[in-house]
Amino acid sequence: MSETETRKRTRSGGGAARRAARGSARIETARFIERNIPNFEILSEEALEMIEAGAETVLAEIGVNFVNNPGALALWKEAGAEIEGERVRIPRGLARQLCGHAPARITQHARNPARSVEIGGRSLVLAPVYGPPFVHDAEKGRRYGTIEDFRNFVKLGQMSRWLHHSGGTLCEPTDVPVNKRHLDMLHAHMTLSDKPFMGSVTEPSRAQDSVDMCGILFGEEFVQRNTVMTSLININSPLTFDDTMMGALEVYARNNQACIVSPFIVGGAMAPVSVAGTLTQVLAEGMAGIAYAQLVRKGAPVIFGAFVTSIDMNSGAPTFGTPEASQISYGVGQLARRLKLPYRSAGAFCGSKLPDAQAAYESANSLNMGLQAGVNFMLHACGWLEGGLVASYEKFVMDADQLGALHKFAQGVTVDATTQALDAIREVGPGGHYLGCAHTQENFKTAFWRSELFDYKPFETWAEEGGRDTMQLATARVKALLESYEQPPMDPAVSEALGDFVARRKAAMPDAFL
Amino acid sequence: MSETETRKRTRSGGGAARRAARGSARIETARFIERNIPNFEILSEEALEMIEAGAETVLAEIGVNFVNNPGALALWKEAGAEIEGERVRIPRGLARQLCGHAPARITQHARNPARSVEIGGRSLVLAPVYGPPFVHDAEKGRRYGTIEDFRNFVKLGQMSRWLHHSGGTLCEPTDVPVNKRHLDMLHAHMTLSDKPFMGSVTEPSRAQDSVDMCGILFGEEFVQRNTVMTSLININSPLTFDDTMMGALEVYARNNQACIVSPFIVGGAMAPVSVAGTLTQVLAEGMAGIAYAQLVRKGAPVIFGAFVTSIDMNSGAPTFGTPEASQISYGVGQLARRLKLPYRSAGAFCGSKLPDAQAAYESANSLNMGLQAGVNFMLHACGWLEGGLVASYEKFVMDADQLGALHKFAQGVTVDATTQALDAIREVGPGGHYLGCAHTQENFKTAFWRSELFDYKPFETWAEEGGRDTMQLATARVKALLESYEQPPMDPAVSEALGDFVARRKAAMPDAFL
Repeated sequence: MSETETRKRTRSGGGAARRAARGSARIETARFIERNIPNFEILSEEALEMIEAGAETVLAEIGVNFVNNPGALALWKEAGAEIEGERVRIPRGLARQLCGHAPARITQHARNPARSVEIGGRSLVLAPVYGPPFVHDAEKGRRYGTIEDFRNFVKLGQMSRWLHHSGGTLCEPTDVPVNKRHLDMLHAHMTLSDKPFMGSVTEPSRAQDSVDMCGILFGEEFVQRNTVMTSLININSPLTFDDTMMGALEVYARNNQACIVSPFIVGGAMAPVSVAGTLTQVLAEGMAGIAYAQLVRKGAPVIFGAFVTSIDMNSGAPTFGTPEASQISYGVGQLARRLKLPYRSAGAFCGSKLPDAQAAYESANSLNMGLQAGVNFMLHACGWLEGGLVASYEKFVMDADQLGALHKFAQGVTVDATTQALDAIREVGPGGHYLGCAHTQENFKTAFWRSELFDYKPFETWAEEGGRDTMQLATARVKALLESYEQPPMDPAVSEALGDFVARRKAAMPDAFL
Repeated sequence: MSETETRKRTRSGGGAARRAARGSARIETARFIERNIPNFEILSEEALEMIEAGAETVLAEIGVNFVNNPGALALWKEAGAEIEGERVRIPRGLARQLCGHAPARITQHARNPARSVEIGGRSLVLAPVYGPPFVHDAEKGRRYGTIEDFRNFVKLGQMSRWLHHSGGTLCEPTDVPVNKRHLDMLHAHMTLSDKPFMGSVTEPSRAQDSVDMCGILFGEEFVQRNTVMTSLININSPLTFDDTMMGALEVYARNNQACIVSPFIVGGAMAPVSVAGTLTQVLAEGMAGIAYAQLVRKGAPVIFGAFVTSIDMNSGAPTFGTPEASQISYGVGQLARRLKLPYRSAGAFCGSKLPDAQAAYESANSLNMGLQAGVNFMLHACGWLEGGLVASYEKFVMDADQLGALHKFAQGVTVDATTQALDAIREVGPGGHYLGCAHTQENFKTAFWRSELFDYKPFETWAEEGGRDTMQLATARVKALLESYEQPPMDPAVSEALGDFVARRKAAMPDAFL
């Protein structure tokens, strides 16, 4: 955001932004991670070139389908692709060239300017779980999600120190008609949180509603000139771009809003069973989708996405936090960086039915990978359970706590005279201890990351306090966070206009539940 | 092991090795990990040089203490160090020069030659938890360890496909007198497992017993010419080398057996509160200890160790799986590689009192780090609970299962015509699926790692089967493994000689419980 735009926006948005900025001081939220560590590069130059050449072969010889979308076919034809029915064969080099128009870094604005995020380069933006029809907590068990659950998750996200983004479909509010859910969900993100959020993608008209509501929240002119939403456009792998998702992408691209263009891969089902084959297909798909966004509007902000899981060949179930998914995500990171595009992957993925040890091993595998793979936007960074079928209250706060460790690790290691502490080593000497020395006293407060959830007490104290496991500690934390939640302030005129918009749009449509 | 030595040993060791090799076919155990992935390098060249210069300053100006050890002081004096009381000041460059005599890679022989391991270079050898006085399982809870527990853990280690090493003090067998425990522990490792193991370090005489028992198991000449034990020598940080540990190191070094020379650091207590300060001290300590081993016997096999945790400054409790510990372990890996020494660090570290989500997040953080930090020997790779106070049955099999994922990830990504699978992508085409295609059929069995513990079933099946969490699944797996355990075959003459040795040594000492 330029200086001018900040001023303009503050003028037009009234006191809301200023009040929000003041209010936000209560929860010290990290804005986003700026990595000071190297990326882990799993593929050699030779391997990368072979994958890139293979992806061009896929696009040129096999091609991709744009389903039910004559407009897309026309754009592709004009750009020089060969069209046969719905199949689009893209000449070698064309998709990559078109990807070159996309910006390498996106500023996604929040209504509270202190919460705006940078997506790209060395940044990492963390957003919560997206899409589950079910929710789970220790008390009430597994059940369909409701708008009340949805609002609770928005509140938990707003309260989470290490979460930078309010996300999108935190859970499906199944008690609201399908065709009206997006209105209630957006309203919740806009009013209960002051962090950035995602738009609806389930219909082009819902994407347009998202843009219109942002016009009320940010001002219409501001929206046209700045990115205020990042929305999730899945590719129907293999190699298929359906009209619903592309319709939403078209709305967002035309309105200068960011899309995550994401092959959705269960390896062995939607892509080859091998890592190299999956990488080749993912690159072809990602480039085709991003190139199309550039055909819709040159310079449209996009993020190269990769949602990748492996499959349990015994049962056919998708598996999470596995080594092959990590290898693919590391590889796509390298490929995305060579395209100079922001990268989305990873998340607190797990297949477990409970927020137990399986869930935590699998999630930690994927969270660590995401940080080291150079991911710029991590959806599902907290709350994901049971292969994404369930949004878990307890796991939301467990994962969100672990995100703090990523922040600390990403700072890297500063080696200078102060941190090397030769004077402290001299002061303490052989056989001494550092607890009381000056260097420790000066630095201990910020020296070590500590969990706000885990139990660090001695066994006896822990046992006296009930011997609670992590799930029980998390149940208590969920309760405490929701009880202490405070709604971020908003200009009453904006609040009223948003409410009016939702009411008007709802009244204009009959309820639909399919 | 050279061809000649293999033949000699097979002759002298009788049919035991051959029989063991045949017997071992029942459990397909990975021998060790040979990494085909890069190391994660967190420190710049400049930072590494500053730490190396700082470590030389620590050794030359502050020095280290060799406590109660006139022999060590004499060796250091002869080598050119400045001695003042028990303080040894080592001139710049001397310790590094002495470290240059140590081998870069060690073959540790197992009695079953198929289970011998390579420690150094790109290898990673995984060994179980070491040292807990307590054990824990779901049924009986937390209690002092016994020799029966110890034997159970040896059996679980022998049955673990991804564990390469039987370890050492899996738990303290507190029902055996302190001065005789090492005999029963070594006897259990030697007879209930055919994987490599560790020697006793709690007294020089116990180290000698370990060498003598290995003489019976491997043949005395074989022991003098080959490494058959890797033993854990902790440095009493900061900068102190006590006579017990050094006495054991001297026995092992003289007998050509490997020692892990390991600063034992709780950051902020035994080392500066900063990562750079800790790295500087750890390098100084490691170099001094390894240099000393070279003074005892030039060319003695050693491993550069780093046991590092941070501290919770609120409670003073050590914390595990934290970002600072990871940063330090990554850094020490780089420093050890510049010394061309094998490196020991990481483990399934956690502070949790139960094998729950906390335990799993913390352990996964550290396990992943260990693989990517270039660790060559990972002690505590499974079973560690409650800051190392407890060996957990359930966590042993949970962690051991996760070690399989490390194996798969370490293979790296092969990109060639077969794995790239362009023909499969062509065959399936846009909108198809890969489950039935030829490439999938040919490769699915080895394509994806799968857990042998976690639940991958649909929610309904899982719920019908009792809705078990990972702890309950692990309890069942522990039981199944112990029930299906088979003792690896051993030459009866060797078995009898080992039993006789233990009985004779026990009879020669009164019981001691302190």
